Amino acid sequence: MPQNVSSENSQTVPESQSVSESQSVFQNKPASGCPHTSVSADLTLSATELTRVKRGPKRAQDDRDAMLAFIDQSLLCYVGFQINGQVRVIPTCHWREGDYLYWHGHSKAANIAGSGKGEQKVCITLASLDGLVMARSAFHHSVNYRSAMIYGVPEAVTDPDEKLRHFKLFVEKLSPGRWDLLRPVTEQEAKATGIMRVKLDEVSMKIRAEGVVDDEDDLDWPVWAGVLPIQQRWAPAEQDELQTANPNVSEQLNTPVLPDCDIC
Amino acid sequence: MPQNVSSENSQTVPESQSVSESQSVFQNKPASGCPHTSVSADLTLSATELTRVKRGPKRAQDDRDAMLAFIDQSLLCYVGFQINGQVRVIPTCHWREGDYLYWHGHSKAANIAGSGKGEQKVCITLASLDGLVMARSAFHHSVNYRSAMIYGVPEAVTDPDEKLRHFKLFVEKLSPGRWDLLRPVTEQEAKATGIMRVKLDEVSMKIRAEGVVDDEDDLDWPVWAGVLPIQQRWAPAEQDELQTANPNVSEQLNTPVLPDCDIC
Repeated sequence: MPQNVSSENSQTVPESQSVSESQSVFQNKPASGCPHTSVSADLTLSATELTRVKRGPKRAQDDRDAMLAFIDQSLLCYVGFQINGQVRVIPTCHWREGDYLYWHGHSKAANIAGSGKGEQKVCITLASLDGLVMARSAFHHSVNYRSAMIYGVPEAVTDPDEKLRHFKLFVEKLSPGRWDLLRPVTEQEAKATGIMRVKLDEVSMKIRAEGVVDDEDDLDWPVWAGVLPIQQRWAPAEQDELQTANPNVSEQLNTPVLPDCDIC
Repeated sequence: MPQNVSSENSQTVPESQSVSESQSVFQNKPASGCPHTSVSADLTLSATELTRVKRGPKRAQDDRDAMLAFIDQSLLCYVGFQINGQVRVIPTCHWREGDYLYWHGHSKAANIAGSGKGEQKVCITLASLDGLVMARSAFHHSVNYRSAMIYGVPEAVTDPDEKLRHFKLFVEKLSPGRWDLLRPVTEQEAKATGIMRVKLDEVSMKIRAEGVVDDEDDLDWPVWAGVLPIQQRWAPAEQDELQTANPNVSEQLNTPVLPDCDIC
C-alpha cells in the first residue's frame, strides 16, 4: 500500500502535534498509523457548531493526520442515520482513501440504501477504549480513549470500475497483497454490493491518554489508583480445515497476511 | 456481585441456544457472562418493525440471556439520538441492572440532556468485532461479531439515593469491591452527574461466530482461507506514580482489581 502522505502536507503539522508524538503514549500503536493515500493539505479538523467539542475541550485534537491515522487503524465505525425520523446506529467496517471514508454492504441494506436517503447529514462515530482510569474518588474515574465523530451527507459510489477499485482498497487494508490472489469478483457480486462514502471535512476528534487526575486533598486516600490499559490484538489465525487437511496445500498458502498496522 | 439470574428464567432457554453453548466458540469469553441482577422472565428478544433482522436473518439471536451477557461484558455502547433533527452518535460506558441499561455523563452533556429531549426513541448500539473471516473470494469475506441494537425512550434517574446506588453499581462493574474503598461522593459531584436509562424491551442481537463459507466451486482456489480472531485484553496495570514512589503504601493498595468478566 502506498505510504505517500506528501511531505508538504506533513510539514503543515507542527512538531508538537505530530502523529508520532501524540500517539507515542498509546500502547502498541505504531508511530505513524497507516496513511493510505495522499490527503488535501488544506483540510483541517473543523470546529463547526456540530464538531466544536463542548465537554472536555482540552481533550479535543486538532491534528488532522492523527485523525486519519486513527481512522486507518480502526476496523469498525458506527453509522448513525434516520429512516422516517427514527435514529439507527449500524456498526460496519470501513476504509479510507484520501479525504473520504467508505463503507459497503448489501445494496439494499439500511446503512447503504437508508443512509443516503433525503440528503441527510449522517453522524459516523469511531471510538477505541484504551484504558480505565481508576481514581481515588468515583467522580474522577475516567477512561483513556480515542474517538472521532464525522458529519456529512453520504454519496453512493456507483461506477462499476470505481467500485471494483474500492473493493480492492478494502481487502488490501485488511490483508495487504491479498486482492490479486482472490477468485475475481463477478458482475453479479459487484451489483449486489453497495458502497457509500462521506467526505472528512466536518470531523472532531478527542483523545484522553494520561494517568489518573485526583483532587489534591485525595492524594493520600488509601485505594489503588492508576490506569488499567486495554489492548486489542490478533489471536492465532484459524485456517479453514479444508486447507489444513490437504497435504498438497503449499507453505505459502498456509500463511495468512495481517493488516499493516495495529488495530483498534 | 449477585449472580442470581433465576433458574426458572434459565429454564426458558432451550439447551441448544443456551448462553454456554452459543458463546463457547468465542475466544477467551466466559461461558455465562456476568449477569448482574435478576431479570424479568417474561421479557424476550422482540421482533418489532425496528428490531426484525432483515439482513442476515440467520445471524439473529433470540436468546435474551446471551444479549444480557453481551451487554454486561461490553464496556462501551454508542448512543444515537437527534438534536434539532441532526443525528449524533456518542460513545459512552454503560452498566446494566435488571431490564435496564444505564449510562452517565455531565448533567449538561449532549448524551444526557440531549438524549432525553422530546420523548424520542434513541438507538443504542453495541458491537464486538471478534474476527476477520478471510474467504477465497472478496465477496464472501465477512467478520465474526456480536452486536446488539436497543431502541427505547430514555428516562433520567434523578432521585439522589438512587443515583448514588447506581454510581456504586457502575464502579463495581469495573472493579468489584472498589466502591467502599473510595473517597465518598460529595453532593456537588452527584448533582453534576446525570444518569439516563432505557428499558431493554425492544432489542435485536446478531452473532456471527463461524468459519469461512465459500462457494463450492472456489474451495480449491489457492489462497489462504480462515479466520483471523481479534481479542481484547488487559495490559499490565499502570499504578499512579504517587503510590509507587511511596514506600508506606501497603501491599494491598498495590493490587488493582479487574472486572469479574472478560471484556469486549
